[in-house]
Amino acid sequence: MTVQDPHASQAPSIEYQFRDDADVIAFARQHVGDQLPAFTVASELQVEEIGDGNINYVYRVCTPDRSASVIVKQGLPWVRIIGESWPLSLVRVRIEAETLQFEADCAPELVPVLYHFDESRSAIVMEDIGDHRNLRHAFLERASLPRLGEQMGHFLATSLYRSSDLALDAHVKKSRVARFTNPDQCKITEDLFFLDPFCDHERNSINPALRADAEALWQDAALKVEVAELKQRFLSAPEALLHGDLHAGSIFVREDSTKVIDPEFGFFGPAGFDIGSWLAALWLAACAHTELEGEQGDKRDYVAQLRAQAVTSWERFAREYREQAALTPDASFAAPGVAERLLARMLRDALGYAGCELIRRTIGLAHVLELESISDETTRARAERRALALGRELIMARDSLSDIDAIDALVARHLA
Amino acid sequence: MTVQDPHASQAPSIEYQFRDDADVIAFARQHVGDQLPAFTVASELQVEEIGDGNINYVYRVCTPDRSASVIVKQGLPWVRIIGESWPLSLVRVRIEAETLQFEADCAPELVPVLYHFDESRSAIVMEDIGDHRNLRHAFLERASLPRLGEQMGHFLATSLYRSSDLALDAHVKKSRVARFTNPDQCKITEDLFFLDPFCDHERNSINPALRADAEALWQDAALKVEVAELKQRFLSAPEALLHGDLHAGSIFVREDSTKVIDPEFGFFGPAGFDIGSWLAALWLAACAHTELEGEQGDKRDYVAQLRAQAVTSWERFAREYREQAALTPDASFAAPGVAERLLARMLRDALGYAGCELIRRTIGLAHVLELESISDETTRARAERRALALGRELIMARDSLSDIDAIDALVARHLA
Repeated sequence: MTVQDPHASQAPSIEYQFRDDADVIAFARQHVGDQLPAFTVASELQVEEIGDGNINYVYRVCTPDRSASVIVKQGLPWVRIIGESWPLSLVRVRIEAETLQFEADCAPELVPVLYHFDESRSAIVMEDIGDHRNLRHAFLERASLPRLGEQMGHFLATSLYRSSDLALDAHVKKSRVARFTNPDQCKITEDLFFLDPFCDHERNSINPALRADAEALWQDAALKVEVAELKQRFLSAPEALLHGDLHAGSIFVREDSTKVIDPEFGFFGPAGFDIGSWLAALWLAACAHTELEGEQGDKRDYVAQLRAQAVTSWERFAREYREQAALTPDASFAAPGVAERLLARMLRDALGYAGCELIRRTIGLAHVLELESISDETTRARAERRALALGRELIMARDSLSDIDAIDALVARHLA
Repeated sequence: MTVQDPHASQAPSIEYQFRDDADVIAFARQHVGDQLPAFTVASELQVEEIGDGNINYVYRVCTPDRSASVIVKQGLPWVRIIGESWPLSLVRVRIEAETLQFEADCAPELVPVLYHFDESRSAIVMEDIGDHRNLRHAFLERASLPRLGEQMGHFLATSLYRSSDLALDAHVKKSRVARFTNPDQCKITEDLFFLDPFCDHERNSINPALRADAEALWQDAALKVEVAELKQRFLSAPEALLHGDLHAGSIFVREDSTKVIDPEFGFFGPAGFDIGSWLAALWLAACAHTELEGEQGDKRDYVAQLRAQAVTSWERFAREYREQAALTPDASFAAPGVAERLLARMLRDALGYAGCELIRRTIGLAHVLELESISDETTRARAERRALALGRELIMARDSLSDIDAIDALVARHLA
């Protein structure tokens, strides 16, 4: 297909944007180099635009026989469907490239290869993981993903440990915190996670059959105090470099392979935020499967699988974090018991942020495919009600939950 | 007196430094301007170097009759008595000037007026508060300072609230966090507060009569876990712009006037750090007065006064913080109960940091005049032992102490 002429779209054109197919192809060819020889030596290449393209253009550039391909991603300085009135800093593209490179240093098998980042064009060239599919679709089809929990636990442990105060010298860490600061992106999370779902906000999207439950939640004064504390920590706890948007839509899978993509929300925040986002991805899918169509036995089994993935993710995370923390070069953090203390804090935070994610994906702006696939409103409301109630209890009870089996039992009660 | 020829000192000379008296005088005259007419119009001015000058030169420039004067402070990029081998970023001078200006916006009566900051010369011109004396000396002489607690509570409430997530838009706050980042200065605190006193470090200075107590403390595994958590928050909790060095040596007093000076350690950290440093300043003096020479009754009264100052400081702080928080423009933080939750967190942190300060001022590198004024080692060890035991209990029990009267009772037990 032809690259859309930017002048014909709603968003105005800008200097650095690719002019046409040939420009995208030349850019990809120039910057892949030795890293993918089959691609670089091909005499002909073709391009197709993929992705929804609200804030980025995403292209696949491939050989005519599709035996070799790369992805080119270019950022827009505004939201495309709205135009210049909703600006969005292009710093996010550099941050995406640098977070991706950091994650590749931590867990190379779990992220696409970054071939090149060009700051002047706000563009990234990276590995095409088109042989993987989005985790949301895999969840919807009840795919068995036996290694997913271990892989995500490993991803979280390496990326969150290696960017922490235990691993990094304070000078280095502070310069990285500054480098990964992007208030535009954080503001999106601050509003969509911590503000909108807890009041009658125009951005919310609520199943009419769930309206009364949302209204009851907006009256919950005790919950708002907990959410305010979680927001305050989101704003002011640069513990580790987060992916920052670790929902199922940012994860691609193939039988036993997992790829985490799109870290454009990368910033230094509370480690529990990434962990909680991931746990909530599993628990949201589990809530949906209680009401999705299918055999009762199959559904029950899949819910149990998803719960087990959450337990495995935490256990692998904690074990690996503990092992790495034992090697901290900082004597203050090397004392016995310190890693356990920090893990306990991360788990409490993770439960709080998971609770916020469960709630905002149910009554906030952005919903999840698994729940939205339940077409009947009343049926969907039953699943959504589980997500709301589980989310609320995780937030309220997080200080007294220190054991993953007890947490799993709590989750199981809400899914029964 | 003549300004010391920098070439004659151990530290090498640098371009921006004042060449001689005339240079300092010209600088002061140029930059005071309309702010102090009696000074600016004086035909003759004289200069004297004051202060210990380890990392800064501090000059008083005054009229011959001393009726008008200003302070000129110039930073050195290294520790003067050591030389270039111990470099120290001059960023601290800009940070001191900007923190001082921020504090002046918050509580103008409690800091010296900043007349001018010159980045190219790393120099500040400010109000001379020479009619005040250092709080350490006032403490030593058992001066009655009836307004001190209220004033410090007010200083803490305005500066810590107005730089918090409740008061500032997240964009503004993040840019300020970056602007007030100075790893060189923070590293000093990280080591002297959280590392040295909890191990047998060569930088420590320990009263021989207290050696066994220090050694017992170094074996305290549970304490080290708590201190590690406090250090982690010091590194990664940019809640508010701190003074960062709020001990009695940074405070000058006159009957009912208080001036907080020297915010060159200013950075965004946990609000409880400043509060705890200040409470510990009072409690350290109280520990010293249990053993300093004097009438038993006078000593008991003064210890009670110091304890009361701590209670007043917290109560004033909490009341004023609560009042300001009620006006937060951020809807997420406006819910009832949020300010109380944040205050509880600040109090817990404050007790932890106060505990660290009590310990590091007893067995760490830098001691306090009040304790050092007890010349007999055995007598001094009795006072130091109170400080150590109080510090330890504050750290260990901080999660269960939520009431200032209960805290005061705990302090009283250690001082009895």
